[in-house]
Amino acid sequence: MRIAVDALGGDYAPEEVVSGALAAARGLLADEILLVGDPETVEPLLGSDRPENLSLRPSRGSVGMEEDPAASLRARPEASVAVAARLVRSGEAEAFFSAGNTGATVAAALLWVGRIRGIRRPAIATVMPFPKGSVLLLDAGATVECRPQDLLSFAVMGSIFARRYMKIEEPRVGLVNVGEEPGKGGRLAREAHKLLAGCATIRFVGNVEGRDIGRGAADVLVTDGFTGNVVLKTAEGVAREILAAVRDAVSGSLLHRAAAGILRPRLLALRSRLDPETYGGSFLLGVDGVVVIGHGNTRARGVENAIRGISRAGAGLAGDLGESLRREGAL
Amino acid sequence: MRIAVDALGGDYAPEEVVSGALAAARGLLADEILLVGDPETVEPLLGSDRPENLSLRPSRGSVGMEEDPAASLRARPEASVAVAARLVRSGEAEAFFSAGNTGATVAAALLWVGRIRGIRRPAIATVMPFPKGSVLLLDAGATVECRPQDLLSFAVMGSIFARRYMKIEEPRVGLVNVGEEPGKGGRLAREAHKLLAGCATIRFVGNVEGRDIGRGAADVLVTDGFTGNVVLKTAEGVAREILAAVRDAVSGSLLHRAAAGILRPRLLALRSRLDPETYGGSFLLGVDGVVVIGHGNTRARGVENAIRGISRAGAGLAGDLGESLRREGAL
Repeated sequence: MRIAVDALGGDYAPEEVVSGALAAARGLLADEILLVGDPETVEPLLGSDRPENLSLRPSRGSVGMEEDPAASLRARPEASVAVAARLVRSGEAEAFFSAGNTGATVAAALLWVGRIRGIRRPAIATVMPFPKGSVLLLDAGATVECRPQDLLSFAVMGSIFARRYMKIEEPRVGLVNVGEEPGKGGRLAREAHKLLAGCATIRFVGNVEGRDIGRGAADVLVTDGFTGNVVLKTAEGVAREILAAVRDAVSGSLLHRAAAGILRPRLLALRSRLDPETYGGSFLLGVDGVVVIGHGNTRARGVENAIRGISRAGAGLAGDLGESLRREGAL
Repeated sequence: MRIAVDALGGDYAPEEVVSGALAAARGLLADEILLVGDPETVEPLLGSDRPENLSLRPSRGSVGMEEDPAASLRARPEASVAVAARLVRSGEAEAFFSAGNTGATVAAALLWVGRIRGIRRPAIATVMPFPKGSVLLLDAGATVECRPQDLLSFAVMGSIFARRYMKIEEPRVGLVNVGEEPGKGGRLAREAHKLLAGCATIRFVGNVEGRDIGRGAADVLVTDGFTGNVVLKTAEGVAREILAAVRDAVSGSLLHRAAAGILRPRLLALRSRLDPETYGGSFLLGVDGVVVIGHGNTRARGVENAIRGISRAGAGLAGDLGESLRREGAL
């Protein structure tokens, strides 16, 4: 695949992004990486042994993490994320990746990549890692105000994606809600429940409460982008705080440190299994191309894993989604 | 205080509730416990050495965990939660506690205890325990669809409650949102941000993202009851899954078990610090009396802790809230 990478997006850009892109290019010889950024900034980071399948595409400026997405894209149409999106539009790239301002990535994707026909709003599909397995959550923050119909389209897209990307034959779809009974929640959740229950192309297992999200109650969880973003970040934050507290609890005296030394390999394995970096990026579903969003604090390993994820699952994704949606008559 | 306890509410009622109420009565000699339930069910559980400050108030039937609250209360006006609420209304009790169907407890409180003047909707205020400290979250699920003005009243009530109950002089109030900047979120969050920023009687510290909830970013977190309920349960679920995975990771071979044995006391201390049971119940703020809601899966220790919490913080709470709201001219 030809994958455009926004070299200037993310808290540790450009150094970590370039480093991750270089590693990915060396590992994925069949793919082509188009690194997008100001040449004077990015060029020096490429070093002398630049892989043949990595090239630099010039852009000018970038959108800061705290900036208003729409205003920034208007003011700086040559910013790296905008140029990356236009490489997909023109067909020079089949996918683009950015770990920068999420709102700007979504806005650039909507503006230049466009939507799949029948999809009103896109959703960020994120793999949430838990000790007992993973769950695909959408929307993780692309559409903070949703209509019931949006949640239906998220469910259908999430099912198709989980089948393809997570190799789950008949993914169980759950609706995030405050109780298990169909009548629970506000108007959005109640109406969405009806639409999901009536949709023949997905395997709907009903409402899923917060406490069951990490328990394997569903493979795909749908919710609006506000709730999804808060849930995702809360889960990540709680996992981080507890693992840090476990680390503190097992340090101290020599005896405790010795005991901790014996257990360290297993605790590190657990931490790695729960680390969002392992999963790299989140696919923006509903746009007519492959757009992948990285965590703002992604480092080289996360960038490399995101590019590997695109290489593995990206080819033909949007076409496949669009075709499945039409064939299943779901929307 | 005179505290009514719904003996039939909760997954482990009546046994665990009665056992917790007995323990609380024995420990709180200055208080009086009014246990509400069907005499033929509850009486046999009281044993022969019943404390003098515990009496039985008869009721008939209960509201099941999965039942529709309003319909059940109409059909069974003599159910335990309804009788408990009416004991507060009549002044025979100053507070009531139930670990049963949350919706039924809120409905009974609204119907018979009534609201504080100026408060449109009540909020469940829950202490969320994290390794680095606790945060008061409201609403945890009483009002799933909120207006911006509701979030302002939650913030004012939460501040007063945190000052009184958590002994925090000037509690920092945060708004749960998908980003730190004021313009983030949907219409509800954006409008609420304006109201909170303009309120002189609270110390508003701005938006708080999910990842910062467990990091001590605020003492009081306000959000609508849908988001709050999902966030609370997600945090509890993730904590439980990770602590279980840590336990699994440190078991196995003799060497691992020996090492785990050395670390066990500290890991147990951490687990206890994160256990919602330690905090007992959640106060329903905005009603004109003291109403405390227990976790559905609360056992005797949680019931006892909830009753202790009411005894410690309950006296005059509603009057205090109402007076503060009027004095501060907040609403």
